[in-house]
Amino acid sequence: MAKDVEVQEQGEYSSKDYQDPPPAPLIDPEELTKWSFWRALIAEFIATLLFLYITVLTIIGYKSQTDPSKKGTECDGVGILGIAWSFGGMIFILVYCTAGISGGHINPAVTFGLFLGRKVSLIRALLYMVAQCAGAICGAGLAKGFQTAYYDRYGGGANSVADGYNKGTALGAEIIGTFVLVYTVFSATDPKRNARDSHVPVLAPLPIGFAVFMVHLATIPITGTGINPARSFGAAVIYNEDKIWDDQWIFWVGPIVGAAVAAFYHQYILRAAAIKALGSFRSNA
Amino acid sequence: MAKDVEVQEQGEYSSKDYQDPPPAPLIDPEELTKWSFWRALIAEFIATLLFLYITVLTIIGYKSQTDPSKKGTECDGVGILGIAWSFGGMIFILVYCTAGISGGHINPAVTFGLFLGRKVSLIRALLYMVAQCAGAICGAGLAKGFQTAYYDRYGGGANSVADGYNKGTALGAEIIGTFVLVYTVFSATDPKRNARDSHVPVLAPLPIGFAVFMVHLATIPITGTGINPARSFGAAVIYNEDKIWDDQWIFWVGPIVGAAVAAFYHQYILRAAAIKALGSFRSNA
Amino acid sequence: MAKDVEVQEQGEYSSKDYQDPPPAPLIDPEELTKWSFWRALIAEFIATLLFLYITVLTIIGYKSQTDPSKKGTECDGVGILGIAWSFGGMIFILVYCTAGISGGHINPAVTFGLFLGRKVSLIRALLYMVAQCAGAICGAGLAKGFQTAYYDRYGGGANSVADGYNKGTALGAEIIGTFVLVYTVFSATDPKRNARDSHVPVLAPLPIGFAVFMVHLATIPITGTGINPARSFGAAVIYNEDKIWDDQWIFWVGPIVGAAVAAFYHQYILRAAAIKALGSFRSNA
Amino acid sequence: MAKDVEVQEQGEYSSKDYQDPPPAPLIDPEELTKWSFWRALIAEFIATLLFLYITVLTIIGYKSQTDPSKKGTECDGVGILGIAWSFGGMIFILVYCTAGISGGHINPAVTFGLFLGRKVSLIRALLYMVAQCAGAICGAGLAKGFQTAYYDRYGGGANSVADGYNKGTALGAEIIGTFVLVYTVFSATDPKRNARDSHVPVLAPLPIGFAVFMVHLATIPITGTGINPARSFGAAVIYNEDKIWDDQWIFWVGPIVGAAVAAFYHQYILRAAAIKALGSFRSNA
Repeated sequence: MAKDVEVQEQGEYSSKDYQDPPPAPLIDPEELTKWSFWRALIAEFIATLLFLYITVLTIIGYKSQTDPSKKGTECDGVGILGIAWSFGGMIFILVYCTAGISGGHINPAVTFGLFLGRKVSLIRALLYMVAQCAGAICGAGLAKGFQTAYYDRYGGGANSVADGYNKGTALGAEIIGTFVLVYTVFSATDPKRNARDSHVPVLAPLPIGFAVFMVHLATIPITGTGINPARSFGAAVIYNEDKIWDDQWIFWVGPIVGAAVAAFYHQYILRAAAIKALGSFRSNA
Repeated sequence: MAKDVEVQEQGEYSSKDYQDPPPAPLIDPEELTKWSFWRALIAEFIATLLFLYITVLTIIGYKSQTDPSKKGTECDGVGILGIAWSFGGMIFILVYCTAGISGGHINPAVTFGLFLGRKVSLIRALLYMVAQCAGAICGAGLAKGFQTAYYDRYGGGANSVADGYNKGTALGAEIIGTFVLVYTVFSATDPKRNARDSHVPVLAPLPIGFAVFMVHLATIPITGTGINPARSFGAAVIYNEDKIWDDQWIFWVGPIVGAAVAAFYHQYILRAAAIKALGSFRSNA
Repeated sequence: MAKDVEVQEQGEYSSKDYQDPPPAPLIDPEELTKWSFWRALIAEFIATLLFLYITVLTIIGYKSQTDPSKKGTECDGVGILGIAWSFGGMIFILVYCTAGISGGHINPAVTFGLFLGRKVSLIRALLYMVAQCAGAICGAGLAKGFQTAYYDRYGGGANSVADGYNKGTALGAEIIGTFVLVYTVFSATDPKRNARDSHVPVLAPLPIGFAVFMVHLATIPITGTGINPARSFGAAVIYNEDKIWDDQWIFWVGPIVGAAVAAFYHQYILRAAAIKALGSFRSNA
Repeated sequence: MAKDVEVQEQGEYSSKDYQDPPPAPLIDPEELTKWSFWRALIAEFIATLLFLYITVLTIIGYKSQTDPSKKGTECDGVGILGIAWSFGGMIFILVYCTAGISGGHINPAVTFGLFLGRKVSLIRALLYMVAQCAGAICGAGLAKGFQTAYYDRYGGGANSVADGYNKGTALGAEIIGTFVLVYTVFSATDPKRNARDSHVPVLAPLPIGFAVFMVHLATIPITGTGINPARSFGAAVIYNEDKIWDDQWIFWVGPIVGAAVAAFYHQYILRAAAIKALGSFRSNA
């Protein structure tokens, strides 16, 4: 691993081996005229729909299997470990499938982080978020339709603050959880690293999926784990209960703050933009 | 990820960096004379046999371990999570092992989807399906032979609609589950993406296996999860009970519809074939 | 995937894109003089030692955690799923670590299969098996030393035929299980495929580890799963009970037969050596 | 796999296809003047903080979910398998994210092993360890802050020798566990293997994460598994109980000895440095 450090330092002084793409414009009217743009919106919509459908179905199925009134026993069902796999594994395959079409965000917090990093235009970011939220509502609705008997009884897969935790803890858990995810996304898609380590893009969807898996293992007991405003919003719309809506802001503010901190950490600490802004004479482009 | 979008758009206008292979002919008499064709059938037969053998054995073994009459306790056995891993993991290794010999279908729905996408000829598609169903019957039979004492008592690993769900729900679950699988297969084998992202083929069998794993986590409580007509048919032939045969059509119609929708989505939405058909002047070959 | 088939057929007629290495000699006295040969034996010894140490410790630890007399409950411990991960995951990392030093066999059945495929010399095969068995004995002994209180009480991780299964079933399970493993090993290391699909070696240790994981999920209830004579022998030597020794032959005959069938299947069916031997005029070297 | 051996032997006689980097100097004052050095310290600090935060939260959350006084049942929670995944999965994603910035150590034992192999300077090694321990304290403190109600009641995720095991066993378990980890790290980053097998760096973070996962499966019942002095120290500082401090030396001596043995095994056995030192005339640089 140490050798990576050497290569990295070398990379810092020579700008030959990679190109930072220019920052995305805030508004790029031309992209609205391309089929590839609308296709990307469709892909984000379908991917978020499938994400909510599979994960909510897994949550409800698990709870119905362990319900004693259905002769279920404590150990039937896939367990909380299975639920965490469901979220992480779906992100792995959906990022893999949509990376080449839309960039594979499937999460407004990821879109927001990449917008802050000037990787996507403002108009693309906003429309992606709309597509993600619409897909999430449809996916949760589909899961409810398939599990009518159990959906409401088992909480609908909606996020809220669990008993015994206060809102500050929940907000903190969402912030740090989203930081872990968006930090991994930035690490996986950094053009500097892509040029140096040919292996970075090879594995990109896998660590991103694992980051989601890990955060779910840690914070399902606290909030059910959001770290994805579209996921929390879609489940809330379909489940539609007061307690869920009271806590909803946590699942928007937390991920947005976490993504912003991750974007700052990546751009100003790891990419050393801060130092450069303070007058570094090294050319990096 | 945003940079992928850029590259993708560039790729749309220049046709230099990849080649769409010509559509497979409907009937290609010449392929019948090649050893590689018959070898592919053998490989599909053996792979589907091993798939059913391992997965049915895992299901029966799990149920016998948790049987209180055998002093099993609720928590013995690999759990439903282990069963989901068994299906997903076997698809991962079998696609990996047979991709270079037969294309690694191991599933009539995948074969049908690739036939619709004109990736395989009609005659190859039909004979693959025969080989897959024959392999599945032999694999399930082998598992029954090894577990004579428990096979019938624990349901033989056959698919049927679970209590509390209606047939429409089961059909919908099969359609969407197969859509997730075949969409991943198309994404992993798209020549356009292969040319652009060198990492796509590297990981191909892994996300395909994960797609199967995910769908099992979500729909085992509803149907036991088919999404593979050969798997459902082989288990039904060996278990051979009325209830199973009554529901069998669901495990053929669902996967076939799901695969067709995935093929349509990939060819006409993501690959923009619809737009091109409507008079696009951009050459793509 | 269909395109792989095309490429594969093309590959069959042109011999330019890969080289079959010449068959290994039966006896190669020169290799005995090289440090790299003795180093490979050390690496096989250490790897098999670590394999038995970690897996036996996992088995004993699981049983001690679920022991009611220790206030354990049914659900404590890593579960049978965790044990299956332990075997599969250790093979993944040990094949990864030793592939470049010894070829990463860690299993006399794999060594035997590769010897039949003329990938290793007779003398190397025999000495590898000795190193593997010696390593397995040391690893199981170490695990016993660390778990003195529980090792004998919980069966020592030794393989035997479970109650309710006959010896024929156990032998069959070992044959097919080893077939799955050695078939994956041959697929992962085929020079023909390596030349064509650059991704085959990239993932080689991962599907090999998954194959071991899958077979354990399926056959732990029947035999505890051997598919590795060194693993069964090492545990038997340290546990040293009559019942274990009575069944020991199953864990040698089964894996050897399974490996031989896999070598035959790969060399004569998938590589088409049978057809070529019958008078094919196509040069392949 | 056998072919790897051939290639490897060829590699031994020609020094053209790879370059051993020169040994790192013990003290390199110049690196202290580079931003990339301080950035690496920040990255190690943040990565170790996230590592402790996620894993301790997973442990506490699991115990609170299975607490009968909270109406939890034995089978709620992610299980010990989920805890093992948490440790292994976090190392996978954190090594992936920080490999290009700091080398991705996140563990004083790994830093010590790489220092012995002369991959990092003494000053870098010492400051890395300080950053790791500071990060671990902050991460464990954060987890305590989020789980105030449960942190102390459930043991704080701190390592200590479990009832029924003596300190010698615990020390041995830590030594061998760290050996498995550091051996995998050396195998994954060996420049000789990187040149020969282009796949080695591709998969590097994945087997390193799996090594951590495997060791946790095996030794959680004995010590809770340290194999990372920063992880044990951070949890001890925050939990701060006599029994934990009494055992703390085991979680420093064990990993340091294990890392030293792994460095020796890799440099003097596998890389054949011993033979070369005894008068080999082959140039290797």
